[in-house]
Amino acid sequence: MFSQPHTVSFELPRWIDPYCAQYTASPEMQTRMAFVTEAARRNVQAGTGGPFAAAIFDADTAELVALGVNLVTTQGLSMLHAEMVAIALAQRVLGTYDLGENTERSYELVSLGEPCAMCFGAIPWSGVRRVVCAARDADARKIGFDEGPKHPQWAEALRMRGIAVVRDVGRDAAAELLRFYRDSGGVIYNGRRGD
Amino acid sequence: MFSQPHTVSFELPRWIDPYCAQYTASPEMQTRMAFVTEAARRNVQAGTGGPFAAAIFDADTAELVALGVNLVTTQGLSMLHAEMVAIALAQRVLGTYDLGENTERSYELVSLGEPCAMCFGAIPWSGVRRVVCAARDADARKIGFDEGPKHPQWAEALRMRGIAVVRDVGRDAAAELLRFYRDSGGVIYNGRRGD
Repeated sequence: MFSQPHTVSFELPRWIDPYCAQYTASPEMQTRMAFVTEAARRNVQAGTGGPFAAAIFDADTAELVALGVNLVTTQGLSMLHAEMVAIALAQRVLGTYDLGENTERSYELVSLGEPCAMCFGAIPWSGVRRVVCAARDADARKIGFDEGPKHPQWAEALRMRGIAVVRDVGRDAAAELLRFYRDSGGVIYNGRRGD
Repeated sequence: MFSQPHTVSFELPRWIDPYCAQYTASPEMQTRMAFVTEAARRNVQAGTGGPFAAAIFDADTAELVALGVNLVTTQGLSMLHAEMVAIALAQRVLGTYDLGENTERSYELVSLGEPCAMCFGAIPWSGVRRVVCAARDADARKIGFDEGPKHPQWAEALRMRGIAVVRDVGRDAAAELLRFYRDSGGVIYNGRRGD
């Protein structure tokens, strides 16, 4: 008998709200990234998911719109990378599937890692106007994660669509967190590698 | 005051269950694709989303595991392309974030359109072993949709990860459905184009 759910849902960890309440809007990218990096560390320490976090901020006021963390293993859906979670939350908060709809406001995605193939492809549909990354793909690969079959000129491809890309903001702290995750025995999951 | 939801959820249209109950497992790819194409048509006619559908089948028995449709405009999340919805549903049905986990079974994704940049990137994480597509990117582009900044050798990149790609199965019927959507005044939404 065929049967699939009528509703698909996923839950955010309980620690997220009190953590977000501590955020104070900062014009410094480094400060926003430090907030995201600390969220990834808490996600690991609380056992609520992988070592990745991402947030959507108002690109002008630096106010926090949404904070997402990786929930793949704990919520059981492969699409729940931190960037996807942050984008979905921000779209719910702002009530639109296109964060670029209101041309008076623009939004940025600040992510612990460079986007994987899926999150890269999700960025143009999300409506964000700037992407800020800390760890490089190579840092994630070093601990066994895989960015997937990503477009070889991914940053340029985003820029050509009017989406700014800023890399290496707080890279060292992010790479250190990835190593901490591996050393603490965190699950390294991956998709098909063809091996 | 910062506030984001604790839970994100999306709902499937009510017509999906009775429609799925009509499916009889068929070893013919064309028949499985016709089932998916008709789902896309119903999604348009019911006003429940865009002209796209995708399903996960057991690759050996051709049994239906999950049927997804495009829900972007009606559920308000840019990630809700038909492929993403089908993958999430199948992962809920089977209780795993990796449909390739059980090596005794393999699963295929049958989709009305070739995957956009996001869905392409989501496929390796999903664990499916075969992707079957009807409409080409060019058919979607003809009515104003955009596949995003997709990897220039996307099909080859999937094959290199052990995921078979079969194209042009029932392409004419799918392309006709896309034209029907445009001619009936359907919303054509897009991400940042950089124009």
